[in-house]
Amino acid sequence: MNNAYAQSSVGIVEPKTAFFDEPLFLKSGEVLKEYSLAYETYGVLNAKGSNAVLICHALSGSHHAAGYYSETDTKPGWWDTMIGPGKPIDTNRLFVVSSNNIGGCDGSTGPSSVSQSSGKPWGSLFPQVTVEDWVETQKRLAESLGIAHWAAVIGGSLGGMQALEWSVRYPSWLSHCVVLAAAPGLTAQNIAFNEIARQAIFSDPQWLQGDYALSETVPEKGMALARMVGHLTYMSADKMSDRFGRELRQGSFEPDDDEPIFQVESYLRYQGSQFAGRFDANTYVIMTRALDRFDLASHGKGDLSEALARATAEFLVVSFSSDWRFAPSRSQEIANALLASGKRVTYADIESDAGHDGFLLEDKDYMALVGAWMKRVAP
Amino acid sequence: MNNAYAQSSVGIVEPKTAFFDEPLFLKSGEVLKEYSLAYETYGVLNAKGSNAVLICHALSGSHHAAGYYSETDTKPGWWDTMIGPGKPIDTNRLFVVSSNNIGGCDGSTGPSSVSQSSGKPWGSLFPQVTVEDWVETQKRLAESLGIAHWAAVIGGSLGGMQALEWSVRYPSWLSHCVVLAAAPGLTAQNIAFNEIARQAIFSDPQWLQGDYALSETVPEKGMALARMVGHLTYMSADKMSDRFGRELRQGSFEPDDDEPIFQVESYLRYQGSQFAGRFDANTYVIMTRALDRFDLASHGKGDLSEALARATAEFLVVSFSSDWRFAPSRSQEIANALLASGKRVTYADIESDAGHDGFLLEDKDYMALVGAWMKRVAP
Repeated sequence: MNNAYAQSSVGIVEPKTAFFDEPLFLKSGEVLKEYSLAYETYGVLNAKGSNAVLICHALSGSHHAAGYYSETDTKPGWWDTMIGPGKPIDTNRLFVVSSNNIGGCDGSTGPSSVSQSSGKPWGSLFPQVTVEDWVETQKRLAESLGIAHWAAVIGGSLGGMQALEWSVRYPSWLSHCVVLAAAPGLTAQNIAFNEIARQAIFSDPQWLQGDYALSETVPEKGMALARMVGHLTYMSADKMSDRFGRELRQGSFEPDDDEPIFQVESYLRYQGSQFAGRFDANTYVIMTRALDRFDLASHGKGDLSEALARATAEFLVVSFSSDWRFAPSRSQEIANALLASGKRVTYADIESDAGHDGFLLEDKDYMALVGAWMKRVAP
Repeated sequence: MNNAYAQSSVGIVEPKTAFFDEPLFLKSGEVLKEYSLAYETYGVLNAKGSNAVLICHALSGSHHAAGYYSETDTKPGWWDTMIGPGKPIDTNRLFVVSSNNIGGCDGSTGPSSVSQSSGKPWGSLFPQVTVEDWVETQKRLAESLGIAHWAAVIGGSLGGMQALEWSVRYPSWLSHCVVLAAAPGLTAQNIAFNEIARQAIFSDPQWLQGDYALSETVPEKGMALARMVGHLTYMSADKMSDRFGRELRQGSFEPDDDEPIFQVESYLRYQGSQFAGRFDANTYVIMTRALDRFDLASHGKGDLSEALARATAEFLVVSFSSDWRFAPSRSQEIANALLASGKRVTYADIESDAGHDGFLLEDKDYMALVGAWMKRVAP
C-alpha cells in the first residue's frame, strides 16, 4: 500500500461472502439451487439506510473495487481512483457495495466452483447467466445487508448494462443511475469480436468442452488469444500508435516466426498470457454470452424509449471519444431514448484517447464530472 | 460462365507459369535459387509495347483476376468487375498482366511447393518475402514477356503497396500508378490484428511449427480463426449491423455453447472454415508479415514525401469511406505526400458502407472514376 495513495484510499479491506440457499430461477430456465456471492463494502451505511450505492463490475472485473488487502499489497482494487474518502464516489458519506457476478471466477459461485450435487467443478455444466440474473442476485444481497434502496447504481461497460437493467427492472429501488462506456445492446461487430474470442477458447485442445478442470488443465493458449482480441478492442488505434508505433523489437529480420518482431506484438502476447493465468475460460465464455444477449430495448418490444419509460432514476451517461467498442453513439442512443421518454439525464462525452478503457482510468475531466454529479446523490 | 457476364468478360482464360532459374536475392538476406510465377494475361500487347498494365493482388488474391477457366465455370476471377472489354481496365486496348506472389499458394513458388533441394514441401523453411521482393519478381516476369514499361501498375490493399513500391523503386518503369484502399505502412492496430491471426495459427496443435504438410495435416482451426479476425476487419460495423443486426439463429437459449446463437456468428464461422479449406497457413503468415514490414517512408528515411520524391508516375489514390482497416486518412497521407513532393495525383474517397472490401466490389461511382481515369493510360 503506497503511502501517497493510502491517504485517499479506503485502506485495508476484507472480501466477504454471502451464501444464499433460496433457489435462483435463471433467465435460461435453469435453476441454481444455492450460490455464494463475494462482495466488499466501503464506508458506513447510515441509520436511514439512504446512502448505499452499488458498483457493478465489467467483464473481467471483480468485487475488489477499492482498497488494499494488506499493508504490503501494492495493487489496489480496480476502481480505487474513483472510490474512496474524498473521491468522486466518496466513502466519507456513501456506503459502497461491490459484488462479484455469479458465473465469475473471483469468489462468487461460478463454473470453477465445486458443484454441491456432483462434488466436482461445475465446468461445462454451469448454467448460462444473464445481466438480468445478476441484478436478481444483487437485489438479494442488498436485502441480506438491510438495504432497501440504492442511492445510486453505478457501472461501466458490462457493469453499465447492469445499472441500466436495474433502472427498468426495479425502478423504485434506485434514485440515481450511472452508466459509463456502455451500450443498450451489442452490435453485430461487437458480437463478432466476442465470437472470435470464444472460438479461440473452443479451438484449444485443452478446452475439453469446458471440462478442463476435471483433467487439471487449462485452455491457456485459447484464453491468451481471446484476451488479445478483447484487449485490442479496448484500446484506441491512436493510443496504440502513440504507444507502439511501428517500433521493432529487433532491427533485423527474425528467422523464427514464433518470435515477435514489433513491440505491439510483445505487448499483446504479454497481456494475453497474464490474463490466461488468472481468469477462468468458462467464465469468459459466460460473460461474453451475457454481453451478447443483453438487449435493453427488449423491455419495450424493441423500442428503447419505451423500455426506459419505466425508469424513475436520474441518469448520468458518459462515453469516451475514442471508444470504438461501445462508441459514443451508443451512449447517445441511451441518452436520447431517456430524453424521449421524459427522463432526467446528464450526458457527457469525455475527450480521451484511452478507448473503451477510458472509464477505468484517471482522467481529470472525467473525475471532476462524476464527482460533481455524485454530489446530488444522497446529499 | 454466365451468358450475361460473358458478353463483357475476357472469356475463357488459361493460367500460365514462368520459371526463373536466376537466383532471387531476398530482402531478408536469403536467396531463392529458382522459382516459378503463375500469371494470366488478358488482351493483346501492342507492337510498341506501350499498353501493358500490371495487376497486383491483395493478401488472399491470386493471378486469376478476370475471366473463367471453362464454359461451366461459375466463378470468374476476383476482379472481373474491373477488368474486361469495355470495363474500367479495358482489355480492348490494354494488355493486362496479373501475377501470383511468391510465397503464395495458388501456383507460384511458396511454402506448399516442393523444395528442389529437399524434395519435400518447403513449409517452415520457406524464406520470408516482402513487397520489395514481389516487385523484383514482377519486373523479371515483365522482361520475360518482352515488356519494358508499364502503362500502369494497379493494386488494392497489399496490392496497392506493391504499386507504391514500384513507383519509387523503378520510377522509369511506369507512367501511371493506381493505389486503392492502401496505406504507406501498417499502424500498430493493423499489426496487432495480424499478430492475433498469426497467433491463432501458431496455437493450433496441427501447425507443427509450419511443417504440417510433412505430417499430411493442416492447422484448420487456427486458419479459420485467423480468417474470422481478418474478415471482421474488412467489413464496416454498419454493414455488419445492416446485414446481421442482432438476429438470432434460434429464438431460445441454446444449451450447447459450441452452437452459434446469432446469425453473425454462423456467418463468420462459415467464412473461416471456407478459407481454411483453400488457403495455406504458411502463406497466410508470410503475407501478413510482408504487410507488417512494408514501410514506404523508409525510402525517405521516415519521410513519406521524400520517399515519393523519386516517383515520376501520375497517381490515382482511392479510399473507401467506411474502411477502418486502411482508413481514408491513410490514403490521404499518400496523396498529401505526393502533393508535397510536387507529383500529379488524383485522390477520391468513395462513399461506401463496404469497408475495406470496397475496392473489390462493384460500385457505380468507383467504377466510373477508375474507368474515366484509366482513359489517360496508354491512350
